[in-house]
Amino acid sequence: MASLEHIDAYLESHLNESIAELSRFCAQPSVSAQNWGLTETAGMVADMLRRRGFSVEIFPTGGAPIVFAERKGRSDRTVLFYNHYDVQPPEPLELWETPPFEPTLREGHLYARGVSDDKGPIMSRLFAIDALLATEGELPCTVKWVIEGEEETSSAHLAPFVREHADLLRADGCVWEFGTVDFRDVPIQYLGLRGICYVELSVETANQDVHSGLGGSIFPNAAWRLVWALNTLKGPDERIRIPHFYDHVRPPTPREQELMAALPDPAEEYRTRYGIKGFVRGLQGGQELRLAEVYEPTCTICGLTSGYQGPGSKTVLPARASAKVDFRLVPDQTPEEVLRLLRAHLDAQGFSDVQVTFLGGEAPAVTDPDDPFVRLVVDAAEEPYGVKMQVVPMVGGSGPNHVFQETLHVPIVTAGPGHPGGQAHAPNENMRIDLYLKAARHIARILRQFGG
Amino acid sequence: MASLEHIDAYLESHLNESIAELSRFCAQPSVSAQNWGLTETAGMVADMLRRRGFSVEIFPTGGAPIVFAERKGRSDRTVLFYNHYDVQPPEPLELWETPPFEPTLREGHLYARGVSDDKGPIMSRLFAIDALLATEGELPCTVKWVIEGEEETSSAHLAPFVREHADLLRADGCVWEFGTVDFRDVPIQYLGLRGICYVELSVETANQDVHSGLGGSIFPNAAWRLVWALNTLKGPDERIRIPHFYDHVRPPTPREQELMAALPDPAEEYRTRYGIKGFVRGLQGGQELRLAEVYEPTCTICGLTSGYQGPGSKTVLPARASAKVDFRLVPDQTPEEVLRLLRAHLDAQGFSDVQVTFLGGEAPAVTDPDDPFVRLVVDAAEEPYGVKMQVVPMVGGSGPNHVFQETLHVPIVTAGPGHPGGQAHAPNENMRIDLYLKAARHIARILRQFGG
Repeated sequence: MASLEHIDAYLESHLNESIAELSRFCAQPSVSAQNWGLTETAGMVADMLRRRGFSVEIFPTGGAPIVFAERKGRSDRTVLFYNHYDVQPPEPLELWETPPFEPTLREGHLYARGVSDDKGPIMSRLFAIDALLATEGELPCTVKWVIEGEEETSSAHLAPFVREHADLLRADGCVWEFGTVDFRDVPIQYLGLRGICYVELSVETANQDVHSGLGGSIFPNAAWRLVWALNTLKGPDERIRIPHFYDHVRPPTPREQELMAALPDPAEEYRTRYGIKGFVRGLQGGQELRLAEVYEPTCTICGLTSGYQGPGSKTVLPARASAKVDFRLVPDQTPEEVLRLLRAHLDAQGFSDVQVTFLGGEAPAVTDPDDPFVRLVVDAAEEPYGVKMQVVPMVGGSGPNHVFQETLHVPIVTAGPGHPGGQAHAPNENMRIDLYLKAARHIARILRQFGG
Repeated sequence: MASLEHIDAYLESHLNESIAELSRFCAQPSVSAQNWGLTETAGMVADMLRRRGFSVEIFPTGGAPIVFAERKGRSDRTVLFYNHYDVQPPEPLELWETPPFEPTLREGHLYARGVSDDKGPIMSRLFAIDALLATEGELPCTVKWVIEGEEETSSAHLAPFVREHADLLRADGCVWEFGTVDFRDVPIQYLGLRGICYVELSVETANQDVHSGLGGSIFPNAAWRLVWALNTLKGPDERIRIPHFYDHVRPPTPREQELMAALPDPAEEYRTRYGIKGFVRGLQGGQELRLAEVYEPTCTICGLTSGYQGPGSKTVLPARASAKVDFRLVPDQTPEEVLRLLRAHLDAQGFSDVQVTFLGGEAPAVTDPDDPFVRLVVDAAEEPYGVKMQVVPMVGGSGPNHVFQETLHVPIVTAGPGHPGGQAHAPNENMRIDLYLKAARHIARILRQFGG
């Protein structure tokens, strides 16, 4: 086996090459919500893996294809990587300082749509593999890899794929799509993801828009119907008003609360970074804010559309209105249950005219913080990052980890080059180059120690 | 004086020429909300008037210029025409069968943005003047004409113009910008217009959109703030909840109610034309629906915008949200009062974070149905239309008639080529050619009888 010094030296001296490859990867649009560039990107991913000696299979799904790859290692023990090659829509384009699909290096950051979520993490793993292959000629353990193309639209075809190919995917530990440092540059081990239920609510009240002078006092107005329906979902007290919505919410365990209590207070950083004046419900910070952020389910309006939205005024009574709404779920809620409760609630409130379109969902899932694989990954971070990794039992985002846990019974950990200013899902998405190198060193160590 | 037969014969034989001139007029975009083509169109209007021997002056306003024109007649008595050369935005473009600024004749209708509101009415008056000048060599009475370019954005500069130039505009009767038949092809005399107060409500809760997984349970959400604020303005019972909003609402007089009771029931036509399932508040039709349509003030959401509005899902917590809201006012409400009450209400309800931007307003105004000028105009319609004109004391739309009444003390009547399927403010706006001819015959008779 090569020494860690050799591996690290390889990574240092090949960093520019790897960033160049990442830039080419990010220049290829792959917006799942807009069905833009997905097949091309799947092919690109397959090529990158084949060049590293992986056997690759591209599985059609009816949506974006899923790339599965495997390369045997010195030991039989198997790590499964999960990533996604799709990215969020780049809009609003006018807020990008450089175009979203023209990757640009500025002051130690690479800017591009998808560089943080999730093309940078994919490439940091390939980079670690490059270093292991170059210095050792083989991988320390077997690596299996699932890279899907629908994560940003709620992974419609991943769960059936995992269930159908459970034997193919069998592994001893799974590394999730992302990993990040926090505001202090301390690497974080996220062990839980909230679930999600994403819906579109839409109303149609007429066959066309009407002059507001004509219909204003007698015609039903789609925008008003939508506003009133939304208002029944959550009030200014932030309490979700759908009956039985909270029935299966399990409060954090004492161990989870203990791990949460060890985290820094995020309040000041959030205020500064996002320019917000205060948090909802009078939350000030500390443990109260930390627990509210991840252990409470949400009902978020992600978008509203109706009628005239241009400059100035247009006196029109809209025939159509719609809202995108995302519910984040905590154990033991499920998207199926939320969908059912939502429909029943709207009907009971007199909003049978409001149509609910399910746009995707995931159940929440958590990994035991005391699992040996978790300890290995946490310990492997200390040298690259120069500081002890912090274990966070739950994070606010979502992903399809539930199906991996349920089907493969693997512990799931996080490792990757993220940072809190990475602007995932927003304009000017970016990745720090220093963290990219650290993430690759971390991944190389995980594979070596896991191989034994 | 030429006989009416001569005048009518002129109109019949020059119809195609006039429609061709109208098509050129409609091909020139003049969208006040988008500041598109206004100066060019004002110049075009001035040229059309000068060609008819009018003295023309173009008044700059800071916004779109106002065209004033005058031509002396046989008698000293003066009719004042009010029109506007601006049009509504053409969006949504995809719903037009032919492009909005490429006027197209199909089955007896001319299709174009602005053909019904208000370029067709302008041209029908020019056409009547052409006939009078061709057959009599002069006008029977003096014609003054105000043609503004900001009617569709609430006529911001008209009121000061009218007040400043009251002597120049002095007249004995005023013909308003439009006129129409109803669903039975009976010509309608509209004597009142509701007022309007058009505002944009906007909220900003952060300096950028945030990943909904991060902020969903702790950050304020601009879209939710907007929904909750809107919900305090009007509930599903359609009652406007702003305190004192109804204080100055004057119910219709017995004479107004009598005139309303003589109108046909619009319910079935509305249901069919607009594909609506029912009216608000369980209104079925008849006098109840007629009075609700025009004698009640409204609060209409004309548009909603926030966050992600594209296809599929984007998990984002919006930093900004806004709504366009139009209040239609009845005597004796004023836009200034509504604006003040709205601000106070939002503050009282805890929505000081919701900004109110005033986009334009008009007070309501009505003309006495028993005024002699009204009788003259009603009688003059009988021959061209072959049926008695129906007097409607109030209509749901709005316009700047209040300032004319208040400043010039003139009765204000309507006359023009409109029809209920004219799609004003909507895609596929159109005008019926047969009604265009009838309107020109009507206008010619009004000027002759008024000249004495």
